[in-house]
Amino acid sequence: MKIALIGFGTVGQGFVEVLALKQQFLQNKYDLNLNLVSIADIKYGSILDPAGIVPVKVLNHFRKHGNLFDFPTQIRPEDSFRAIKQSGADIIIEATPTNLKTAQPAIDHIRLAFELGKNVVTCNKGPVALFYPELKALAQKKQLAFKFESTVMSGSPIINTALYSLKGCEFKKIRGIMNGTTNFILTQMEAGQHYAEVLTEAQRLGYAETDPSGDVDGWDTLAKVVILANVVFGGQIKMADVKRKGITGLSLEDIQNGLKKGFRWKLIGEISLTENGLSAKVEPQMVPLDHPLAMVMGTSNAISFTTDLLGEVTITGAGAGRKETAFGVLNDIINIAQSKA
Amino acid sequence: MKIALIGFGTVGQGFVEVLALKQQFLQNKYDLNLNLVSIADIKYGSILDPAGIVPVKVLNHFRKHGNLFDFPTQIRPEDSFRAIKQSGADIIIEATPTNLKTAQPAIDHIRLAFELGKNVVTCNKGPVALFYPELKALAQKKQLAFKFESTVMSGSPIINTALYSLKGCEFKKIRGIMNGTTNFILTQMEAGQHYAEVLTEAQRLGYAETDPSGDVDGWDTLAKVVILANVVFGGQIKMADVKRKGITGLSLEDIQNGLKKGFRWKLIGEISLTENGLSAKVEPQMVPLDHPLAMVMGTSNAISFTTDLLGEVTITGAGAGRKETAFGVLNDIINIAQSKA
Repeated sequence: MKIALIGFGTVGQGFVEVLALKQQFLQNKYDLNLNLVSIADIKYGSILDPAGIVPVKVLNHFRKHGNLFDFPTQIRPEDSFRAIKQSGADIIIEATPTNLKTAQPAIDHIRLAFELGKNVVTCNKGPVALFYPELKALAQKKQLAFKFESTVMSGSPIINTALYSLKGCEFKKIRGIMNGTTNFILTQMEAGQHYAEVLTEAQRLGYAETDPSGDVDGWDTLAKVVILANVVFGGQIKMADVKRKGITGLSLEDIQNGLKKGFRWKLIGEISLTENGLSAKVEPQMVPLDHPLAMVMGTSNAISFTTDLLGEVTITGAGAGRKETAFGVLNDIINIAQSKA
Repeated sequence: MKIALIGFGTVGQGFVEVLALKQQFLQNKYDLNLNLVSIADIKYGSILDPAGIVPVKVLNHFRKHGNLFDFPTQIRPEDSFRAIKQSGADIIIEATPTNLKTAQPAIDHIRLAFELGKNVVTCNKGPVALFYPELKALAQKKQLAFKFESTVMSGSPIINTALYSLKGCEFKKIRGIMNGTTNFILTQMEAGQHYAEVLTEAQRLGYAETDPSGDVDGWDTLAKVVILANVVFGGQIKMADVKRKGITGLSLEDIQNGLKKGFRWKLIGEISLTENGLSAKVEPQMVPLDHPLAMVMGTSNAISFTTDLLGEVTITGAGAGRKETAFGVLNDIINIAQSKA
C-alpha cells in the first residue's frame, strides 16, 4: 500500500515518527506493508521515491537540517499537486494547516486525489467542515475511501464510533467538550486563577496559540460541530448556521457560583435532531457534576452520543496531540487497506 | 442476508423487537434487507420459513400465547441444531442463556454454524470466555465472521473500539466497571443503605438474580475480563487463571472511609501487559474521584483502554439491557453484511 503525505508540519512529522515506530508491527500484526513514497511541504520541500522513503532517515535529516531540500531522493516534485500526481500512491494523507474560511489548499489536494482515483485520509478540519457533502459524493462516485477520524478529538474514536460502532442506531443528540485549550482554561479557573493568567500559562505550555481566538471564541469547537452534524446526521449545515459563544465572558464568580449549585461550566458543542431539523450550537453550559462530561478536566475531551437503542454513550480521551492525531491517521489508513484487501 | 436466531429469551425477543422497528430503516439507510428465516428455542418452540418470518407477527403471537408452538410456519425444526442446518441462513445469532462452566449449548451451536460455512454473531459470554482461541481459528480457516460486541457492556462499543477503532495501537492495560448490578449496589450503599437492603431492592428491580453470586462474587466481570484478555491482547487465559474477589466484603464503613480520602470503591476488572505476560484480576478497588471510572454510577458501566499512541480512552455507557444488547447484535450483523457485500 503506497502512501503520500501532503504537509510536513507537526502532525505530518508525528505521522512519520509513528510510521517509523510501527512499520514492523503493522507488517507482523496486519500483514500490512505501508510504503511512504512522497512527502510534500511548501515550506520544507518535497521528495518522492517510488521505491519508498525510509521514515527514520527523513526524520534524522529533518532534525539536523530543519528541511528536506537536500534529502537524497529520486524525484523532487515542484509542488504538492505534482507530488499527488506523480506519487503513484493509493492513499493521500492531507495534513496541511487548517483554514476554516477557505479550506485551502487542503480542499484542492483532496479534489485532485479523488479525481486521480486515490483514497484520502485527512486530519484537517477545513475541508471536512466546509465541503463534506461534496467530498462524500466525490468519493462515493469513484468508490474511494474518505476518512478523517483525527478531525474531531484527534485519534480518539469519535468518527469511527459514530459510523462503524453505532451503525443501526438513530442519533438524537451529540454533545461534548471538543476543545482542549478552553477546557484547560476552565479547569485552572476553578482552582482560582483568572482568565488572563491561565491564558498566559496555556500559551507558555503550547496549549494556546498567540492569537487564542480560534479556541476561546469557540471556532475550533464550531468546526467540529459542523463536521459531526454533516457526517453523523447527514446534515448540510454551514459554519455560519451554528450559534457560537466562547468562554471569554465567564468570570471566576460564574464558575464558583456554578459549583455551589452542583454544576461545572464547560464549553459545549451540541447538535440535536429536533422537529424542525438539525439544531447546532457552541456555548458555555452548566453541566451537572454527576454527568460524565463534568468530570472531563484539563486538556481531555469527551463526546456523548444519545441514540435510540443504546441510550447515551460517552467517549473520553485525548482532544489533541501530535502522536494522538497521527494515530488517528494511521488507524484510517489501516482500515482502508483492510477494506480494499 | 438471511439470519437465524437461536434462543428466544430476553435478548432474542429484544432482537426481534429491534428488527421489527428497524427493518425499513436498514433498507433505506444501508440498502440492507435482513430476512429472519428461523427462530429456535428449546422452551418456546422452533420455526423456520425460507421466505422469511415477519418480526411483528412473531412478537404478537408470543405476547398472546407465550410460545411459538402454534405459530404458522413452513418448517418446524426438531431442535436448534436442525434449525441451523435447515435454515439456509448466512448468519447465525447465538442468544441462548450463558453458561460459564461448559458454554453449552452455545459452543456446539457455534461450532456447527462454522462447520456449515455460516457467520456467527453472539451475545453469549460463555463460548467467547471459554473457547475464543478455538472459535477465532475456526472462523479464520473458513473465512467467516465471528462477532460478539454484546458480550461486554451490551451494545456499548467495546469490542468494536478495541478491534476496529484502536487498530494500530498497542494495548498496555484495560480496566473497567463491567457489571451493572454490583455498580448499582455500591452506588446505593454510598447513600447509606446496607448491602442486604440494596440487594433486595436490586432483585425487586430486576437488576439482580435470585442467586446473586454471578454478579456480586465477580463471576460476570471475570468472564468479561477473560474475553478482553484473549480478544484484545491475543491471550490464552482461562477463567481459573484470573484472581477474583467480589463486593460482599465491602461495608458501609469502607465506602464512607474511601470517600473521605477522595476515593470511590468500584468493582474493577483489569488486564495489564506486564514483563511476565498478561495479568488479569477482578477486585474492588479505590478509584480516585477525579478518574472517569469514579463517576460511573448506578447500572452504567465503563471501560478504559490504555494504549501506546492514544493514551487512555474511556467508553461509558449501558452495561446491560434488552434493547441495548439487541443493538450490539444488530450492529455486528450490519458490519458483517457490509463487509461481505
